[in-house]
Amino acid sequence: MLAEIITIGDEILIGQIVDTNSAYICKELNKIGVQVHQITSIQDEKEHILKSLAAAKSRVDLVLVTGGLGPTKDDITKETFCEFFDDVLVENAEVLSHIYQLFSKYFNREPLPANLLQAMVPSKATILTNHHGTAPGMWLEQDGVVFVSMPGVPYEMKHLVQNEVLPRVIKQFNRPFIYHKTLLTYGLGESTIANRIEDFENALPKNISLAYLPSLGKVRLRLSSKGREELALKDAVNSQMDKLYQLLTDIAIGYEDETSIEERIGHLLVARLQTLCLAESCTGGAIAERITAYPGASGYFRGGVIPYETQKKVTILGVDPALIEKHTVVSAQVAEAMADQAKKLFDTDYAIATTGIAGPTLGDAIDEVGTVYIAIASPTAVYSEKFSFGSARERVITKATNKAFEMLLKEILKN
Amino acid sequence: MLAEIITIGDEILIGQIVDTNSAYICKELNKIGVQVHQITSIQDEKEHILKSLAAAKSRVDLVLVTGGLGPTKDDITKETFCEFFDDVLVENAEVLSHIYQLFSKYFNREPLPANLLQAMVPSKATILTNHHGTAPGMWLEQDGVVFVSMPGVPYEMKHLVQNEVLPRVIKQFNRPFIYHKTLLTYGLGESTIANRIEDFENALPKNISLAYLPSLGKVRLRLSSKGREELALKDAVNSQMDKLYQLLTDIAIGYEDETSIEERIGHLLVARLQTLCLAESCTGGAIAERITAYPGASGYFRGGVIPYETQKKVTILGVDPALIEKHTVVSAQVAEAMADQAKKLFDTDYAIATTGIAGPTLGDAIDEVGTVYIAIASPTAVYSEKFSFGSARERVITKATNKAFEMLLKEILKN
Repeated sequence: MLAEIITIGDEILIGQIVDTNSAYICKELNKIGVQVHQITSIQDEKEHILKSLAAAKSRVDLVLVTGGLGPTKDDITKETFCEFFDDVLVENAEVLSHIYQLFSKYFNREPLPANLLQAMVPSKATILTNHHGTAPGMWLEQDGVVFVSMPGVPYEMKHLVQNEVLPRVIKQFNRPFIYHKTLLTYGLGESTIANRIEDFENALPKNISLAYLPSLGKVRLRLSSKGREELALKDAVNSQMDKLYQLLTDIAIGYEDETSIEERIGHLLVARLQTLCLAESCTGGAIAERITAYPGASGYFRGGVIPYETQKKVTILGVDPALIEKHTVVSAQVAEAMADQAKKLFDTDYAIATTGIAGPTLGDAIDEVGTVYIAIASPTAVYSEKFSFGSARERVITKATNKAFEMLLKEILKN
Repeated sequence: MLAEIITIGDEILIGQIVDTNSAYICKELNKIGVQVHQITSIQDEKEHILKSLAAAKSRVDLVLVTGGLGPTKDDITKETFCEFFDDVLVENAEVLSHIYQLFSKYFNREPLPANLLQAMVPSKATILTNHHGTAPGMWLEQDGVVFVSMPGVPYEMKHLVQNEVLPRVIKQFNRPFIYHKTLLTYGLGESTIANRIEDFENALPKNISLAYLPSLGKVRLRLSSKGREELALKDAVNSQMDKLYQLLTDIAIGYEDETSIEERIGHLLVARLQTLCLAESCTGGAIAERITAYPGASGYFRGGVIPYETQKKVTILGVDPALIEKHTVVSAQVAEAMADQAKKLFDTDYAIATTGIAGPTLGDAIDEVGTVYIAIASPTAVYSEKFSFGSARERVITKATNKAFEMLLKEILKN
């Protein structure tokens, strides 16, 4: 079963926002065996919307449309749907009363006329209640193809997908199973890996595909398959994945599933009743931000210091100034002292410290831009590694963050 | 002049990655007057790629294709281009020598056979040198339409766009000017704003369009126009923007341009030789991460403490434990004490402090999930505000971060 996504809104096409909605919808559809054939992003422009709806209809069974449902004049999705479905807008009593309720609960006032217009919906549409906003979702059918219209606000869209769209799709469509398993590797490039596993790749059964997903400092290897027999499908993919893992034991760090490396660290530390703190200089809070993005971080994360200015490494963290004088602030000795001091200050089992030159200028350092020292303090030791992460600031920070998590995970797994 | 973007790769359609490339390309094209008509994301599947190329060709003057150029078997863009352009792959000596150079410089070894295949390119293609990777960009033309193929790795793609694609597009195509100006507002909803500026919107000249871009806690209002006369165009948009600003002085916080609120704060502080530090509890490093993402942060940012655990607010920041005892850890008093203490500890002019319940559980707090106190310490005073940011952790953190920047900017502009 195939689906397409159409996102409507100028802001995507002028690059003012990144379309994160589509990735979310793709992931959720995939989980229930619906393959996304195409994503199309277009403007709030009637003729283009009409053509895109017709084109999608000719290719797939399900068309999910986001955006263009705001209360303002630039939003025309509903009117365009009426033209496509040869329909008219009618006031929906249920939506109207929902709008009044939302305004009295959250804003403590009457809705404006523009808000009430959100209750005007195509007469043929089944309404999908949007508990988090005034624009309802709409479900329409034409010649056996289902069209769903949802607001583009990510939070509202996600709730509609979870509570309304997925349950209806599961009920209405007969779907195969789709199964992916992704191996996470660190340390070798895409082509070197491809070379090493060439025989494996050539011997893969036709119904299992392998994809390489390289990104900063890591390569993910994904095996995918689709079929009617869920168990047989999973068995086949898992057994190929076991073979692949055996070929890559030196660089494989685990399976990706739904778990990021920082979540995995969190689960391990919570299970072991151990704790973590940070002393982030060149990463400037990026490691802390990733850790605290997950609920439950307070179960193991005690906090951190961002001693961005050199002097603060002395006054707040308590690093010996003679060490900085002797080795410079971007050095293995200072990184290790930072980790050590942070571990003491926060009274934790593990600490990560970073010091380096994110660039583009050198700051208080004498090394090259992109040089980063990462130190890990564990219950029994402290050690550090030196890296050269290139000259692009954003990449230096992201690579250092990924590498710090990788080093910490390896250290935790050793203990 | 119209363009389309086609992104090729399963990883987007199964939701494994978010397509950030398209937003980047759209933004850059827009700056030089090229309007993006459609973005299409499809799989590494020959027939679908061929159809998408043909469809784009019928609609626009320039088609930018990213992805599918890796050295591994799942990448088929080059072969598909050969079919579309009725062409064959030939070895390009320049690309070949570039690959050898890259490997000797960065990996200190000979390239693998798979790497060398990157030098095989369609014979009709003009090669766009990729200084940051082995897959070259390719520029091809058919019936007056230009097709450009680029690798999907963001860093490589961005360099190709900047150094090769944009200069060639500017040279080859006659383009109008496109001008946007975006007003940033905080504090009122989309429909309330629309209601207030209804007369203004109705009186807008036909060639200027207004878009509402709502997101967590803020609404951006964008005026756009397109034309041949750059100066007249800018004058027309700017004068309408002045009118709009006058209608919204109580909620307008400035123009967006290319500058984010954190960059604007940075510029102001650097110009005034003033400094900033942070004490982030519930935002867990998210504010620091946004600040340090920009080069030059070290010019005004002295650092921060993330006292994630309640006790660390006492031991590291030096907040009076009696204050926490009396008012609880999530309170105006504790937020203000955190800001005050951080300001002393880091010896800065300004400090931001956050304490709250990002959720989904209460932690050491007795208030509701989503409750956040944000305090700002300035050279002369400290004050705080209480917010309720709802129950979704990610949104609580983002809203608190945005609000903290907003409060700080207002405070700086007062002084």
